[in-house]
Amino acid sequence: MNVSGGGLHFSRVDIETEVRVLSVFVDRLYSASRRNESLVCVGLDPDPELMPVSDVYEFNRAIVDATRDMVCAYKPNFPFYEALGLPGLRALERTVEHIRKAAPNALLIADGKRGDIGSTNMMYARALFDTWAFDAATVNAWGGGDSMEPYLEYKDRGVIVWCRSSNPGAAEFQDIPVEYGGEDIPLYEWMAVKLCEWNEGGNVGVVAGATHPDELGKVRERCPGMPMLVPGIGAQGGYLEASLVHGLDADIPNLMISSSRGITYASRDPETFAEAARWAALELRDSINEVLVRMGRAW
Amino acid sequence: MNVSGGGLHFSRVDIETEVRVLSVFVDRLYSASRRNESLVCVGLDPDPELMPVSDVYEFNRAIVDATRDMVCAYKPNFPFYEALGLPGLRALERTVEHIRKAAPNALLIADGKRGDIGSTNMMYARALFDTWAFDAATVNAWGGGDSMEPYLEYKDRGVIVWCRSSNPGAAEFQDIPVEYGGEDIPLYEWMAVKLCEWNEGGNVGVVAGATHPDELGKVRERCPGMPMLVPGIGAQGGYLEASLVHGLDADIPNLMISSSRGITYASRDPETFAEAARWAALELRDSINEVLVRMGRAW
Repeated sequence: MNVSGGGLHFSRVDIETEVRVLSVFVDRLYSASRRNESLVCVGLDPDPELMPVSDVYEFNRAIVDATRDMVCAYKPNFPFYEALGLPGLRALERTVEHIRKAAPNALLIADGKRGDIGSTNMMYARALFDTWAFDAATVNAWGGGDSMEPYLEYKDRGVIVWCRSSNPGAAEFQDIPVEYGGEDIPLYEWMAVKLCEWNEGGNVGVVAGATHPDELGKVRERCPGMPMLVPGIGAQGGYLEASLVHGLDADIPNLMISSSRGITYASRDPETFAEAARWAALELRDSINEVLVRMGRAW
Repeated sequence: MNVSGGGLHFSRVDIETEVRVLSVFVDRLYSASRRNESLVCVGLDPDPELMPVSDVYEFNRAIVDATRDMVCAYKPNFPFYEALGLPGLRALERTVEHIRKAAPNALLIADGKRGDIGSTNMMYARALFDTWAFDAATVNAWGGGDSMEPYLEYKDRGVIVWCRSSNPGAAEFQDIPVEYGGEDIPLYEWMAVKLCEWNEGGNVGVVAGATHPDELGKVRERCPGMPMLVPGIGAQGGYLEASLVHGLDADIPNLMISSSRGITYASRDPETFAEAARWAALELRDSINEVLVRMGRAW
């Protein structure tokens, strides 16, 4: 696919000859990242206790307008809207509408980590992919592969499975040893094996937190080329360089480095928060790109 | 606690002397079940393709009015409302308001199986327990014990963890063997062990499907006395008698036998669906109570 070696190289030809793996989801992520030379995903988690302005939509709009040329994705975190009831969800809808206009190339990721049995996931998929028309959604796979099918049938959307989380207690279930191929691997890694099996449509993604880059690397080994959403950078203290080194494998830019509080609450001054968010997003984008240069993978 | 042996016996004294274990959640479930002599939980899953009337609120209101004297709980399934966008969620809010008036003793369970890291679960808990004021919610524990804390801090609400699901593919993750106490037990059973550890406030519950009563029984052995939500009766073909035999252990009625489609779509005739739902709920309640009689545990 990449005939010139060394850095990252992309062309339309690459995509057309690799249609088998480059789903609409992967293609959209590729286009969005390439356009802004950015792996930054901005998490939109409006918290009334932290927001410098009271109106959720106005807050999000200002953040989006200030960052739209330096991100690959926006990721509204559903419970932050749900906690505000219907007005919060109305603000979410308006935010989505605004992003579609102001940043039409950005990937729009619904972060809700929904998951249930299949007949119920069919309704979650309708909500996330039809009603709210997100490009991708984080989901929970506790129900097993058959429960994932209703999500995966949306072949033009990304189904990003919550695999290795960024919290301190993640290990409790996720590190349980599972025998696989004659050795014990942690459950999250075994889940990653399953994700590849489910990925016939090329529309599966995986969540692996930046707070455990070694483990992120194990997920990457099991899921070569798969888009990976990496939370935990910023307020949670994740490791940026190690996450990039362990997480990037393909010629295509298949990481979404997500930061929420570190960008949106960089300043809590109502006069300067948008500008501060812009600088924080710029700083994250550039920090990532400096690592890419050191890796010989400049844009 | 039960001094007369044999059947189910309850008194206010029992509750007052057992405050350590009888949380507000357990007490509410006890009161609601006892009042209607019913373990029936009606799942409210409005599906436009199955509903005999088009208005979600009117549909739910008719079902609630027809069943309110024969159930212990109502369980709206969130994605069925979310799939309809904000009008669907408005119908959910109106349904909740109506249930509070029409069936003030019924336990109101938010079925969303939400789960993320702790800082995000704090927002889910606000949405479910403050904003929408549910008595209990189904949650997902993939994030581990630390992620559960924001839910558990709502000591007057029930936190019902999705442990053993009712779908055919549930085994994929849930049956993974885990070494515990010198033997291998399935992961769902190990999760049940964890639930007991988290249950200091007496406000934890557990989901175990009626489609696998033996496994439901293993969950029950690990979680004595814990309220158990049992989906899978009705359309999914779960086993009623075996679920009761394996699931009931305490003197208090600690099972919620949930049926959705089997009750709400018993008839799809707009003239008769409410009456048909009443008969279906009555039939389920009576079928349960006949088993209780055979078990020597009549109300």
